[in-house]
Amino acid sequence: MKCKVCGREAVIKLKAYNTSLCADDFISFFEKRVEETIRKYSLLKNGRPIVAVSGGKDSLTLWYILNKLGVAADGIYVNLGIGEYSLNSLEKVKKMAQRLNRKVYIFDVCEIVGKNIEGIARIMKRVPCSACGMVKRYVMNRVCLDMGYDVVLTGHNLDDEASALFGNLLYWREGYLWKKDLTLEEKDGRLSRKAKPLFLCSERETAAYAIVSRIDYIYEECPLSFDAKSLVYKEVLNRIEEISPGTKIAFVKGYLKMLKKRKAFEEEGDGKGMGVCEVCGYPARGLRCAMCRLMEKSDTSKQIAFIEYNPEEA
Amino acid sequence: MKCKVCGREAVIKLKAYNTSLCADDFISFFEKRVEETIRKYSLLKNGRPIVAVSGGKDSLTLWYILNKLGVAADGIYVNLGIGEYSLNSLEKVKKMAQRLNRKVYIFDVCEIVGKNIEGIARIMKRVPCSACGMVKRYVMNRVCLDMGYDVVLTGHNLDDEASALFGNLLYWREGYLWKKDLTLEEKDGRLSRKAKPLFLCSERETAAYAIVSRIDYIYEECPLSFDAKSLVYKEVLNRIEEISPGTKIAFVKGYLKMLKKRKAFEEEGDGKGMGVCEVCGYPARGLRCAMCRLMEKSDTSKQIAFIEYNPEEA
Repeated sequence: MKCKVCGREAVIKLKAYNTSLCADDFISFFEKRVEETIRKYSLLKNGRPIVAVSGGKDSLTLWYILNKLGVAADGIYVNLGIGEYSLNSLEKVKKMAQRLNRKVYIFDVCEIVGKNIEGIARIMKRVPCSACGMVKRYVMNRVCLDMGYDVVLTGHNLDDEASALFGNLLYWREGYLWKKDLTLEEKDGRLSRKAKPLFLCSERETAAYAIVSRIDYIYEECPLSFDAKSLVYKEVLNRIEEISPGTKIAFVKGYLKMLKKRKAFEEEGDGKGMGVCEVCGYPARGLRCAMCRLMEKSDTSKQIAFIEYNPEEA
Repeated sequence: MKCKVCGREAVIKLKAYNTSLCADDFISFFEKRVEETIRKYSLLKNGRPIVAVSGGKDSLTLWYILNKLGVAADGIYVNLGIGEYSLNSLEKVKKMAQRLNRKVYIFDVCEIVGKNIEGIARIMKRVPCSACGMVKRYVMNRVCLDMGYDVVLTGHNLDDEASALFGNLLYWREGYLWKKDLTLEEKDGRLSRKAKPLFLCSERETAAYAIVSRIDYIYEECPLSFDAKSLVYKEVLNRIEEISPGTKIAFVKGYLKMLKKRKAFEEEGDGKGMGVCEVCGYPARGLRCAMCRLMEKSDTSKQIAFIEYNPEEA
């Protein structure tokens, strides 16, 4: 198998693009794709982005590429206090911060809330994934706004987007179905903009990029999350991708086109029905936001705060 | 495994309904389900139905059950002239006609058009499946209206519906996506009503019913049709059904609910943009309908006609 660009030995075959590429040309291809996605869909709007990093391949790849493309991007990391897993992932994040020489804001749930994410889930009477989602959304939003960034970027890839969309369609979950967009717009200065620059890059492509770019990421999945359904959705979409390369991209892009049409008819924005938390002043669906209700229940004397890890000072 | 109704040895496990049944109770269960579907969705509207039969398990099962439920239903069969396959399937259809003592109208393409379906496909410059669809739609519609029936019933099952819907969603084919309904309404006395009473019965359940009811059907698939994509769609939906029993039904029902909402907003009916064929007077998108254009190109002196097979006279 030869690289379609330079004729050297190829390392990856990309059926959806009907091409095979060597490591160097794959790196260029992948970076160009991310760059084009950002430009074509106006993901940054010339603002200053911050990347939500977990230590996994997707978020570290995104963080790395942005900086390589000349977009100065710092990071946000939430330390969930899940034993070895959290220690290792924080290590990978700090290592990348050093490689890029960029800052990362760390929110340590054990330190601030006094409990790790499992304890938080118990207090909130939620499953750990739901508690984790709440904390991460809060922290990403708050760091972005408090620290003067313009948009939070997450590492969601094509397989994440396609499988979530697929799950919402299988059960026609209207509450979610038409809420997933490429970007979620900023709202009243209280809800930051969000965007997903890797949404057209498949999981396989992203993993390949991370490997050829020697990105040191945490291989293990979070030990608290085992989402069998989403794994099966990804598996079956890949089965279809095998017989019809390009289907996942067509599926997600087709959805976005459909969404655009719908939005032209409807006047619904993100943050609808949202008020302001009487404690912290950030978005809340009731009088107080979920994070401030958690802090109250946690019996902690701490205030919500972030550690700034600056490799220049480390 | 015991039957949940009578405690005897069960022959089938139905995860979507969280039950196991013996042959007799499965027969009752399946027939009740078809009866309820017809009633709940007003599929017959007290009209006189005719069943489109192919000789396969779905259409013969539907035909058989209707008559068992006391709904007097005759059949329509299109003889496509595909060698052994057509000979065998016609045989199965005649056998069922005898068992039920019901009439079946036969349209013989070789006799009337002077060519089998492969020849017709060549004249029409279409693939055989597309030519077959055109001929069958025309014949079903025309027999229904000419012979004084009120609704054409087809044997499409849950897997057919779910996989077609899935394919339309994967590529967001708007032209098809919102056109699939449980019933297609009659239009101007030129387009018959259509309905699918097995749309909530899975392929596995329908096959099981056919076997326990000793329905003699043709096992082979049509040798001209090999729809790899639709087979993979069915396979992956069954993979999801394994981990989440009931998903296929939820998927199709959710779609119908969504469709109903859309229809409340839009005023689109079936047969939109349809005129009347200047030759036969049946629906046409241009001056002449596709069937009359075919007859013209076929260089035949025949008129469109149907053979009536009446087992009482056979």
